[in-house]
Amino acid sequence: MPDFAEPLARLIMEFKRLPGVGQKSAQRLAFHVLRGNREQAECLAHAILDVKDNLGLCSVCNNIAEGELCPYCRDPHRETTVICVVEEPHNILPIEVTRSFHGLYHVLQGAISPLRGVGPEQLKIKGLLERISAGDVKEVILATNPNVEGEATAVYLSRLLKPLGLSVTRIAMGIPVGSDLDYADEVTMSKSLENRREM
Amino acid sequence: MPDFAEPLARLIMEFKRLPGVGQKSAQRLAFHVLRGNREQAECLAHAILDVKDNLGLCSVCNNIAEGELCPYCRDPHRETTVICVVEEPHNILPIEVTRSFHGLYHVLQGAISPLRGVGPEQLKIKGLLERISAGDVKEVILATNPNVEGEATAVYLSRLLKPLGLSVTRIAMGIPVGSDLDYADEVTMSKSLENRREM
Repeated sequence: MPDFAEPLARLIMEFKRLPGVGQKSAQRLAFHVLRGNREQAECLAHAILDVKDNLGLCSVCNNIAEGELCPYCRDPHRETTVICVVEEPHNILPIEVTRSFHGLYHVLQGAISPLRGVGPEQLKIKGLLERISAGDVKEVILATNPNVEGEATAVYLSRLLKPLGLSVTRIAMGIPVGSDLDYADEVTMSKSLENRREM
Repeated sequence: MPDFAEPLARLIMEFKRLPGVGQKSAQRLAFHVLRGNREQAECLAHAILDVKDNLGLCSVCNNIAEGELCPYCRDPHRETTVICVVEEPHNILPIEVTRSFHGLYHVLQGAISPLRGVGPEQLKIKGLLERISAGDVKEVILATNPNVEGEATAVYLSRLLKPLGLSVTRIAMGIPVGSDLDYADEVTMSKSLENRREM
């Protein structure tokens, strides 16, 4: 490797630790910081620390929160009868951008994964049960990821929640809108056939 | 946009200012910082500030330097008779990784670009002339980028330096090694034909 000045080499190394950032991208980012003014660098550095200092988890749903409650749990206009269960806080974003869900969320902080040693007891399921027993929840939408871990978690939760007498639903899996049947993998295609709907 | 907690929204905005980072990547990076521990966040934040505080420009060649001189100008083993002229400090990297150049560098800190209002007087050309008149420089390699601005800068410099009685060379442009003729654009292909060599 070429000789980078030590602070530059260290910044490149730090950037490389971020997800999806390789050696070349890290160099590009580091040189960008180097070229920019001190004020811009300060804004970035402070924003990084602020996130660690000023954010915690919502005491109700485990989403990211500045203070006691997250923006959704704080919002009086959200429907309290539907809870959408997701694995991680960032899974809320793709649902919110649709503007078609107006209920509350519950973040499990993970998914069941025997390979990584994550069992149901490591997930925030207790809080979900408490919310259901305390409130007027009529439906729980299981929006865990459509992979092995997410599916296992959904199956586990549905067995746990169905006896409580509420509607437990799973987000639909099928061919993405705007895509081409030729490019669909066989599992997705078979899910898409299985979940076909009357027109 | 979904409601992000303010510190998170600010971090996403700061990451988005970096080159090649869009909304989705910025969210991914921000959530990564959020998930990580405080120590990791501190390392990144400090590395960003250190780069601004502890790095300057080499007083000889304008490369990035920790102190008065850059690693190349400080190294007594580099040949002092050849100077490779580049636009920006990061242009030195692709040359150094070849391990086939052992001379010194000169960083212009830009390229002539009338569209962006950058003329020769904004570039660090005076220092280059001083180095040539003071030292035992026999060859100047013009390694500005192979685009309009870089080419204009190379032509300008070659006219300026040739009368000083030294060898002024330009890096070769042609088909990249390992690529396919079918994918070469016409300008590169014509350069490649123009610069053909006896075998």
